[in-house]
Amino acid sequence: MWHTQSYLPSETPKGLRKLREEELEELRGNGEGERKSTDRIYDYDVYNDLGDPDLSIQLKRPVLGGSKHYPYPRRCRTGRTHSNKDPLSEKKSGSFYVPRDEEFGERKQKQFTESILTSGVSAVLKSLDAIFTNLNIGFPSFEDIDSLYKEGYELPPLHATALNIIQKAIPTFFKSANHTDNLLNFDAPQPFKRDKFFWLSDEEFARETLAGVNPYSIQLIKEWPLRSKLDPKVYGPPESAITSEVIESQINGTVEQEISEKKLFMLDYHDLLLPYVSKVREIEGTTLYGSRTIFSLTSKGTLKPLAIELTRPQINNNGQWKRVYTPSSSSSSSSTELWLWRLAKAHVLAHDSGIHELVSHWLRTHASVEPYVIATKRQLSAMHPIYRLLHPHLRYTLEINALARQVLISAAGIIELSFSPQRYSMELSSSAYDQLWRFDLQALPNDLIHRGMAVEDPNAAHGLKLTIEDYPFANDGLLIWDSLKEWITDYVNHYYPNPSTIESDEELQSWWNEIITIGHGDKSSEPWWPNLKTQKDLIHIITTISWVASAHHASVNFAQYMYGGYFPNRPAIARIKMPDEDPSLEEWENFMTNPDQTLLECFPSQIQALLVMVILNLLSDHSPDEEYIGQFMEPSWGEDPIIKSSFERFNKRLKEIEGIIDSRNGNIHLNNRHGAGLVPYELLKPFSGPGLTGKGVPYSISI
Amino acid sequence: MWHTQSYLPSETPKGLRKLREEELEELRGNGEGERKSTDRIYDYDVYNDLGDPDLSIQLKRPVLGGSKHYPYPRRCRTGRTHSNKDPLSEKKSGSFYVPRDEEFGERKQKQFTESILTSGVSAVLKSLDAIFTNLNIGFPSFEDIDSLYKEGYELPPLHATALNIIQKAIPTFFKSANHTDNLLNFDAPQPFKRDKFFWLSDEEFARETLAGVNPYSIQLIKEWPLRSKLDPKVYGPPESAITSEVIESQINGTVEQEISEKKLFMLDYHDLLLPYVSKVREIEGTTLYGSRTIFSLTSKGTLKPLAIELTRPQINNNGQWKRVYTPSSSSSSSSTELWLWRLAKAHVLAHDSGIHELVSHWLRTHASVEPYVIATKRQLSAMHPIYRLLHPHLRYTLEINALARQVLISAAGIIELSFSPQRYSMELSSSAYDQLWRFDLQALPNDLIHRGMAVEDPNAAHGLKLTIEDYPFANDGLLIWDSLKEWITDYVNHYYPNPSTIESDEELQSWWNEIITIGHGDKSSEPWWPNLKTQKDLIHIITTISWVASAHHASVNFAQYMYGGYFPNRPAIARIKMPDEDPSLEEWENFMTNPDQTLLECFPSQIQALLVMVILNLLSDHSPDEEYIGQFMEPSWGEDPIIKSSFERFNKRLKEIEGIIDSRNGNIHLNNRHGAGLVPYELLKPFSGPGLTGKGVPYSISI
Repeated sequence: MWHTQSYLPSETPKGLRKLREEELEELRGNGEGERKSTDRIYDYDVYNDLGDPDLSIQLKRPVLGGSKHYPYPRRCRTGRTHSNKDPLSEKKSGSFYVPRDEEFGERKQKQFTESILTSGVSAVLKSLDAIFTNLNIGFPSFEDIDSLYKEGYELPPLHATALNIIQKAIPTFFKSANHTDNLLNFDAPQPFKRDKFFWLSDEEFARETLAGVNPYSIQLIKEWPLRSKLDPKVYGPPESAITSEVIESQINGTVEQEISEKKLFMLDYHDLLLPYVSKVREIEGTTLYGSRTIFSLTSKGTLKPLAIELTRPQINNNGQWKRVYTPSSSSSSSSTELWLWRLAKAHVLAHDSGIHELVSHWLRTHASVEPYVIATKRQLSAMHPIYRLLHPHLRYTLEINALARQVLISAAGIIELSFSPQRYSMELSSSAYDQLWRFDLQALPNDLIHRGMAVEDPNAAHGLKLTIEDYPFANDGLLIWDSLKEWITDYVNHYYPNPSTIESDEELQSWWNEIITIGHGDKSSEPWWPNLKTQKDLIHIITTISWVASAHHASVNFAQYMYGGYFPNRPAIARIKMPDEDPSLEEWENFMTNPDQTLLECFPSQIQALLVMVILNLLSDHSPDEEYIGQFMEPSWGEDPIIKSSFERFNKRLKEIEGIIDSRNGNIHLNNRHGAGLVPYELLKPFSGPGLTGKGVPYSISI
Repeated sequence: MWHTQSYLPSETPKGLRKLREEELEELRGNGEGERKSTDRIYDYDVYNDLGDPDLSIQLKRPVLGGSKHYPYPRRCRTGRTHSNKDPLSEKKSGSFYVPRDEEFGERKQKQFTESILTSGVSAVLKSLDAIFTNLNIGFPSFEDIDSLYKEGYELPPLHATALNIIQKAIPTFFKSANHTDNLLNFDAPQPFKRDKFFWLSDEEFARETLAGVNPYSIQLIKEWPLRSKLDPKVYGPPESAITSEVIESQINGTVEQEISEKKLFMLDYHDLLLPYVSKVREIEGTTLYGSRTIFSLTSKGTLKPLAIELTRPQINNNGQWKRVYTPSSSSSSSSTELWLWRLAKAHVLAHDSGIHELVSHWLRTHASVEPYVIATKRQLSAMHPIYRLLHPHLRYTLEINALARQVLISAAGIIELSFSPQRYSMELSSSAYDQLWRFDLQALPNDLIHRGMAVEDPNAAHGLKLTIEDYPFANDGLLIWDSLKEWITDYVNHYYPNPSTIESDEELQSWWNEIITIGHGDKSSEPWWPNLKTQKDLIHIITTISWVASAHHASVNFAQYMYGGYFPNRPAIARIKMPDEDPSLEEWENFMTNPDQTLLECFPSQIQALLVMVILNLLSDHSPDEEYIGQFMEPSWGEDPIIKSSFERFNKRLKEIEGIIDSRNGNIHLNNRHGAGLVPYELLKPFSGPGLTGKGVPYSISI
C-alpha cells in the first residue's frame, strides 16, 4: 500500500518517482491477451460482449462504441477470444474480468454478487424459462397483481435443483428457508401501501417527472408548434398533432401566453424512439410509438398533464399514424376517452421506464463513469491527490458494470426480456449517447438550464432560479451539488495553488485527454468538452464526475422498487398497441367491454413483471457497508489538517442538508413532495441505513 | 269474479248496480277495529307504525302524515292497537295486514316474502347483531372488499339455528346448501366486472346522474350566484362558497355564458339536508353535510364535475363551516386536493344514495302510489274501465310496502342502520314530500321541464327538446311515456266519448277527490292538482300514475345492485367528516399518511355494506312471473275488439322501443350510454327475463 500522503507528479519524492511510473505502466498493461482474474490491468474496449452469437445467431448484437453508427463509452477490456459466428464480438464466457482491485468488499459481495452472479442468473432465467410455459402470459386481474404482496407468487412445481438455485439467488424473496416452499414474496412498495390508487392518478404521473425515479427527462417547452426533426420521407409528416386548440381547450389563455410564462413542459420521447418503432414492432409481444407528453404548471406549483401524442411512423405501405389523447376536462370527457388516456399513459410510462434505465441510469451513470475509472487507474497514480479525491467515487463500478453486461443488458438479458425495445434496448442507449450525451450537461446546473428547468440568476440560491419552484430533485440536488463543489474547491485549491500547476500536471492532463479521446472517444471531436487549464476547470470536471457517480446515480437508482415495484405505476413494457390504432372489430370490442383487461394485456407479462420486480428490489438496496458521501474520510484526507477540516465542513454541511430536506418534506406548500399519500422525497438525503430506504447517496455506483 | 266486461257506473246493467255499490261499501269497511288477514278492507292511516316504542323508547318515531310538520302520503290502515309508551303509534306486531286480494302470487311469494318475511328479517338482523361484535368495523382494505366477490364473506362461527335462519332468508347468497357453510357469496356487479376502477372516475360519477340509478336529481342551473333559502339566523350565511372564480378557473368563458348556454348543472342537496346536519351529527358512526355538486356540459355531451360544496351549519357555538372541493385541473392539482375531492365525492354519493332511496324511490313510487291503490279499490268498482286500466299497475304494491314498513324503513330497520341520516331517514323523506313533491311533476315531461332538463318544443320528438341531448333516462323514458299515453288515450276515449261523461262519473270523481283530499290529504290545498273534467285530464292523470308505478319505479329500482352492489360506487353512508373540517393533528396525519384508509373509514361499515348489498340484490331481482308493461293483456281488455287492437299497438310499440334502445346503446356518439367499460342503459327496455337483468319495466311496484 502507498503511504497515505498525496503528491502531485512534480512533487513526488525522488525515491518514489520511478515506482510511481512503473506502477502506472503495469496497470495500463500492453493491450494484449485475455485478462485473468488475478490481473490488475485497466484497458479499454468496445461493448462487443453483449451478444452470444455462438449460442444462437438470434443473440448476435451490434458492437457498441468505436463506430459512427453506434457510438458508446468504452468498457474495461477483458480480451476474450472472438466468436467464430461474429468475429467482431467476443465469445460469451462465464468469466467477466474485472481488475482484482475492483472486486466488491466482502459484505457487498454477499448481497449481490453471490446471489445473482455466483449462483448464476442465467441458471435462474433458465429455470424460470422452464417454469413459464408461456412467457407472454399476463396477469388475469388486478387482484392477482395485489396478491403478489399478500399471498406471494406461487411458482409452479419445480425440480428441487431449480428451486434451490432460485432460492439461493434471491433469498430475500422467500419467506421461509424451507426448500419446498416455492412462494415468491414481495413487500408492497411504500406509495402503494399509503395509497392503493396512487399509480392511477394524473397527479402522480406528473409528480414523478419531478420527484420520481426519472427526474431527468422533463423539459420546458420553448418553441411552438412542436415539430419532429426526423426525415419526413422516412417517418412521415413532421408536424405534431398537438395543436394549440388541444392545449387551449384545457387552459385559460393561449399557448403563446403559457410559453412566455414558462408554464408548458414536456416529456419528449418522439424523435428518439420513432426510428425504433418499425423494427421493434417486428418482434412479437411488444410494440412502440414515438411519444410526447405535455404538462402545464398549475397555481399549486404542480404539473398537470394535458396531452399525450403517440406516433407510429410510416411502415412499409402503412402511412404514418398519430393521435392525441387528453384527460377529462370541462370541454371533453367520456369513459372511452378516459380509458384511452390511461392506456396512452401506460405507453408513456413504458417509454419513460426504458429511457430511465437505458439513458438516465445505465448510460449516464454506469456506462459513462466506467471510462473515468479506467483513466483514473491508468493515468493517475494512487498517490495523486486527484486520484485520492476521486477514488471513493469510482469504487465497485467496474464490478457492477461487468455484472450488468453479464445479466442485465446482455442479449436475452433482463432488460431485453422486459423492456419495450427488447433486443434494440442497448442500440437505443447508443442513440441517446449519440444525440443527447454531453459531458458539460452532466453537471446538474447545466443540465437544468439546458432543459429550461432553471435560468442563471446571481441573486438566487445556487445562482439558479428554478422554472418550477418545487422541483424536489433539483432543489435537493443543488444542495448536494454545491456541497460537493465546495469540498472539491477546497481540495483542488489546496493542491493546485495556480493554473500553471494544473497545466503542468502531466498525469492529470493525460488523464483528462484519455477520457476525451479514448474513454469517450466517439465524442472526442465535440466542441463542448471543457478545457482543463485552471483550478476552476478542474473543480468543475471533478464535481461533475463526483455528482454523476454519487447523487445522480442515487437519484435514479434507490427508489426503483418504490416506484416500479408496483409495476402498474411504471410498466417497463407496453405489450400491445392502442386499441384505436387500426383495430380489428374484436380488438375494439374487447376494449369497450373490458378496458381494464386491455390495460392488463398492455402491462408486462407475469415473468416480465416478476423479473423486473426482483431486479429493482435488488438494485434499490443499500448494503450494510454502503459508503455514503461525506460520511467517512479517506485515510489520505485525514493526513492533511487543511483537507481534514474541509472534509469536516463537508460532512457538517451534509448533515445540515438532511435537516433541510426533512423540513422541505414537511412543508405543506411543496405539493410535489408533501401531500396525501405521498412518500417524502428523500432520495438525496445523504445518509441511510441498510435496505430499501429510498434515501442515501453513496459515493459511488456500486449497484 | 266479475264478468270481464267493463261498465261506467251510469252504464251498469240494472241487475248489477246494487251489487256494484255493496261491493265498494264492503271494501271501504267502517274504519274501525284491527284488520285480520282474511279481510279485504281498504282504508287509510298515517305512518304510525315505523317505531317500536314499547321495545325501547329509542325506537320511538314521529308519526308521518296528518300533520303540518310531517306531511306524508297515507298508508293502508291496519288498525292495530296503540302503544302505551307512545299513544300516537301503533304497537309493533308481527302481523302487517294487507287486504287478502293484495297478496303476492305464488312464485313471487317464494322469491321475496317467504325469504325475507316468513323467516323473519328481524331474526336475521338479530343473528347478524350477534355476529358482529362491533357494528362499526369497516373494511380494512380494498382487497377485503374485492374478496366479497371472490372468496365471499366469511361469517363468524354461528349457532346452527342462526345460520339456518340466514340461509333460509337469503338462500341466493349461499353457494352450497350445506348448512355448515357460512360463506356469504356475492356476484360482482356488471360495471365492476367490466372496469374494476369504474367507481373512481369523475366520468362515471357524472354519467350516473344521467343514466344511473337516480336520474331524478340532476338539474339545470338557472340562477347565479347560488344561495340557500334557509334562515341565515339558524344555519349561517346563505351565500354559496362556489364562486364564479371556482368555476371559471376550469372553463373557457364566464359562468354567465355557461348559464345562458345551459351548460351548468347541479345536484342540489343543500337546503334539504342542512336542517338535518346538526341532529344527525349527534349520532355516533355517521355524519352529514349539505352539499351542492356542479357539473358542466362538455362537447362530448357528457357532464364533467367542477366543484363540490359541503356545508355544516352553525351548531351550538360552532360557526358555519363550508368548503369547496374541485377536481384536478390545469389551474390546480395536487395529491391532497385529489384525495379531498374523492372524499367529497363519497359524501355526495352518500347524499345521493339517501335521496335516491328515500325520495326518488320510496317516496315518489312506493309511498305515493299506495293511496292510488287504496282509492282505486275503495271508489272504483272492479267493473269500472279505469279500475281495469289501472289494475295491473297497482298490483302487489300494498304487500311490498307493508314488508318495507316492517324491515326496511322501520326504526332500526335496514335504512336506518345503513344510511347517513340514520334515525332521521324517514323524517327526511317527509321533508322531501313537504318541499318537493307535486303530483303534476310526477309526469315525466313536467319533471324534466321543471328541472330545466327539457323545454317544450312542438317540433321536437315528444314535444320536448332535451337540454342534454344524450340523457339516457329521459330519452328512453319519453318513449315509454308516449307509448303509455297513446294506449291510455285510446282506452279513455273509447269509454268516455265526451267531457260530460267524465264529470258525471261519480265513481271516478270520488276516486280522484279521495286521492287529493285523503290519500295525499296533507297536500290537498296545493294549487297544482289537476282538474278531472276532460278526457285529456283523465289521460294525463292515468298516464302519470301508470308511469310512476311502472317506468319511474323500474328506472330507480332494477339497477340498484348494478350500481350499489360494489358499494364504493354508491356508499349508502359517509361515516366520518372531511379530514379538513376542524381536524385533530392525528386525524389530519392519518389522512396524509393513508388517504385510502380515510376513504375506507368514511365508507359503510362491514355490516352496513353487507346489509345493503343483500337488500339491493333482492330488490333488483325480477321474479320469474314478473308482469311487464304491455306484455300480456288483461282479460277485460281482450273482450273489446277496439281495446284489444289498441293494446296490440301498445305491445308492438314497446317491442319497437326495445330495438330503439338497443340501437341507442350501440351508438358511439352517445357517450352517456356507450363507452369503454360502460354497461348499456337498458333500464327502460320494457321486457326482461327473470333475475338481475338491469332491464324490464313491470306494470307495478311489486318489489
